[in-house]
Amino acid sequence: MDIPVLDVRAGIEAENAARAEKVRAFLKEKSVFLINLMASPGAGKTTLLCRLIDLLRADFSIGVMEADVDSDVDARAAALRGAKAVQLHTGGMCHMDAKMTLEGLLAFGNDIPELIFLENVGNMVCPAEFDTGAQLKIMLLSVPEGDDKPLKYPLMFQVSDLLGVTKLDTLPAFDFSFERLRANLADINPSLPVFPISRDSGEGLEQLANEIRRRVCSTIPKTC
Amino acid sequence: MDIPVLDVRAGIEAENAARAEKVRAFLKEKSVFLINLMASPGAGKTTLLCRLIDLLRADFSIGVMEADVDSDVDARAAALRGAKAVQLHTGGMCHMDAKMTLEGLLAFGNDIPELIFLENVGNMVCPAEFDTGAQLKIMLLSVPEGDDKPLKYPLMFQVSDLLGVTKLDTLPAFDFSFERLRANLADINPSLPVFPISRDSGEGLEQLANEIRRRVCSTIPKTC
Repeated sequence: MDIPVLDVRAGIEAENAARAEKVRAFLKEKSVFLINLMASPGAGKTTLLCRLIDLLRADFSIGVMEADVDSDVDARAAALRGAKAVQLHTGGMCHMDAKMTLEGLLAFGNDIPELIFLENVGNMVCPAEFDTGAQLKIMLLSVPEGDDKPLKYPLMFQVSDLLGVTKLDTLPAFDFSFERLRANLADINPSLPVFPISRDSGEGLEQLANEIRRRVCSTIPKTC
Repeated sequence: MDIPVLDVRAGIEAENAARAEKVRAFLKEKSVFLINLMASPGAGKTTLLCRLIDLLRADFSIGVMEADVDSDVDARAAALRGAKAVQLHTGGMCHMDAKMTLEGLLAFGNDIPELIFLENVGNMVCPAEFDTGAQLKIMLLSVPEGDDKPLKYPLMFQVSDLLGVTKLDTLPAFDFSFERLRANLADINPSLPVFPISRDSGEGLEQLANEIRRRVCSTIPKTC
């Protein structure tokens, strides 16, 4: 029995890839650096974002695109730190794609910030599958989630450029080991830079902010 | 604090609506009747489909598009009943959209069947949100799922044209009432035709097949 099998997802991915190229062209033309911030719900995306805004706003004008199913809580938090915020309602979609990202970027209007954070939908699967056109993908993994997550969500760890391990102050309460994390990353993304981060002590925040500053300046020298 | 809120889903929906029009134009040109069959996983879509193929294959050439994350079990079952089958792998997407549907239709080639069933991904949310361009939307609700489902998934019940209530033989084991189901549909889709169906006794199958026959013939008279 010969049944034709079509991978209908492939067409969606090809279309998104073409649109991600449009986002990249737009960012280049406008001299904007876009960071795609991804994590599970509750991993600390918004908290980290607010701290990074504090550390980087002297260097760059900062914008935030908050992707959320239907609330604007996170966008308000970012706006309170002085970032220009745009709230994106995805209406149940579990990820941002390149088309949605471009819509969000256009919503900043003519006065578009130099550094824009896209806080993606809290999810470890879908966001990894869609290239948004961002120049940097930062993923967060919180200590309570466990050091085995690269084995369960390999694609997310594979596509990310930097990994922030958040809630470091909860280490004593959880069986989380950075050696095991590194071992679990060995086959997936062995050179992925890992930043242990504590909101309370501030550990790792300045290092991550420096790395972002370095990446922005090397990509868009005129902003530095 | 004035934060712009963008409904990024709206763009996706508008694009899909335009593509659904293309599907409709294609179906009209080729004289094909497409049925979008939707339900939760395990509600009995494939079983019903096989029975409907048995009842309708004397009247129409029949095709089946099976949308599945990665298996082809359902397509093989349909092909064994004499239907021309196409397997669509959605790669994790929880629904079929109009673009994917058109890809599937084109896969039938020149010898396209007169009546095609699209067995959508087993899900009560996403498939309801995407118009595939099908001329008829049939939804299945199995008795074990409960008569309160219209309250929980109103959109699915709202967009459907016919409702099949499957696994009727399990009624004695569950607290399911057709009066309550009707009451729960009152505000959502009060005129939705309901077909109680039993695979074992065959109850309701001939009635549903007749209704499908009637709809195909009134839409595409030359097939009858």
